[in-house]
Amino acid sequence: DEGLIERRIDGGEVFRGNWIRVQRDRIRLPDGKEATREFVRHPGACVIIPELRPGVLLFERQFRYPVGQVFIELPAGKIDPEEDLLDCARRELLEETGYTAGVWEHLGCMHNCIGYSDERIEIFLARDMKPGQQQLDDGEFVELFEMSLKDAAAAVLDGRITDAKTITCLFWLQQKLG
Amino acid sequence: DEGLIERRIDGGEVFRGNWIRVQRDRIRLPDGKEATREFVRHPGACVIIPELRPGVLLFERQFRYPVGQVFIELPAGKIDPEEDLLDCARRELLEETGYTAGVWEHLGCMHNCIGYSDERIEIFLARDMKPGQQQLDDGEFVELFEMSLKDAAAAVLDGRITDAKTITCLFWLQQKLG
Ligand SMILES: Nc1ncnc2c1ncn2[C@@H]1O[C@H](COP(=O)(O)OP(=O)(O)OC[C@H]2O[C@@H](O)[C@H](O)[C@@H]2O)[C@@H](O)[C@H]1O
Ligand SMILES: Nc1ncnc2c1ncn2[C@@H]1O[C@H](COP(=O)(O)OP(=O)(O)OC[C@H]2O[C@@H](O)[C@H](O)[C@@H]2O)[C@@H](O)[C@H]1O
Repeated sequence: DEGLIERRIDGGEVFRGNWIRVQRDRIRLPDGKEATREFVRHPGACVIIPELRPGVLLFERQFRYPVGQVFIELPAGKIDPEEDLLDCARRELLEETGYTAGVWEHLGCMHNCIGYSDERIEIFLARDMKPGQQQLDDGEFVELFEMSLKDAAAAVLDGRITDAKTITCLFWLQQKLG
Repeated sequence: DEGLIERRIDGGEVFRGNWIRVQRDRIRLPDGKEATREFVRHPGACVIIPELRPGVLLFERQFRYPVGQVFIELPAGKIDPEEDLLDCARRELLEETGYTAGVWEHLGCMHNCIGYSDERIEIFLARDMKPGQQQLDDGEFVELFEMSLKDAAAAVLDGRITDAKTITCLFWLQQKLG
């Protein structure tokens, strides 16, 4: 990989908003030249594949202001400082859906925005689901509905599901179920 | 969807870097309260699934500074101002791999970072591939290699492929090939 690696010279935070932080670094390219790289600093997130029954998943409908449309997504949320990954997944599932899961499995990790963010999203499969009371944050609006993995795959092909983290989870589940 | 939609009150650009622009808007939540939303403004991108032979794809290895590691990815790049989507896909495939394709198919679109970016990525399948000379931009370093769809699926499961746009493309191709 030596011929590909970019090395940091110096740099630091150039923007700190309420929600987004941007870092700019001066770097050394593989050919020795200099360049700059800008990217969002993100604490990482967890996404949960909540399997209600064999082959049937719990989805959310949520408005995403940056894109300006309602998305079909799996439950997900940012990792709190110092928070354990599984604790984050449990917390987000409970807050957004009200469900608790008896069986948890960590499947893997994805990077959703490698061009300009350091975000990683850890993928969890939740089974043996017990319903309860949604505990949405103030200002959070989420509708829940069930859909089979099969129907979800069809919803990708006809453009109803375009969220890359959700499609990545569907890929994982399809591989796992064979 | 009325109960989910957030409406813009006002706002605008709060950061303009060399590579990243951030917008902050004041918004009206579905319950009438106010909140702010910050997000990256992105021109959109195209990603190409280059099928060299039935079931065999052309991949790239590229260092991604924000995450600090080499990624296995499919060819992709930003859409230039006013550029037609297919022209963008052709251009990126040629620049990054040297290949031209006789058959192009637009499969669909994904959103990779709906929490804090308006980026969308248009997905193209390229077939009937003819090799040629890579035309990398100054400062761009990309290694090419072939891998079957089957091996790529295995590489997702063992963590070698974590790029969400690439996994989303693998999902699309798997569905298409049945
Ligand atoms: N974070 C960055 N900061 C500054 N310059 C950058 C950065 N990222 C890339 N560049 C510059 O842009 C060039 C690559 O441009 P494109 O091929 O148009 O775009 P790319 O970064 O490959 O992104 C294509 C797609 O991949 C996705 O993961 C990304 O979100 C985008 O959708 C690089 O060689 C480099 O010079
Ligand atoms: N762009 C934004 N600007 C300001 N506040 C925001 C923004 N996006 C979300 N919020 C606030 O954060 C709350 C949601 O926080 P989380 O559930 O922790 O995170 P979420 O935005 O759902 O992201 C989870 C994951 O989805 C991915 O697409 C995203 O990249 C992240 O990986 C929202 O109710 C809202 O109050």
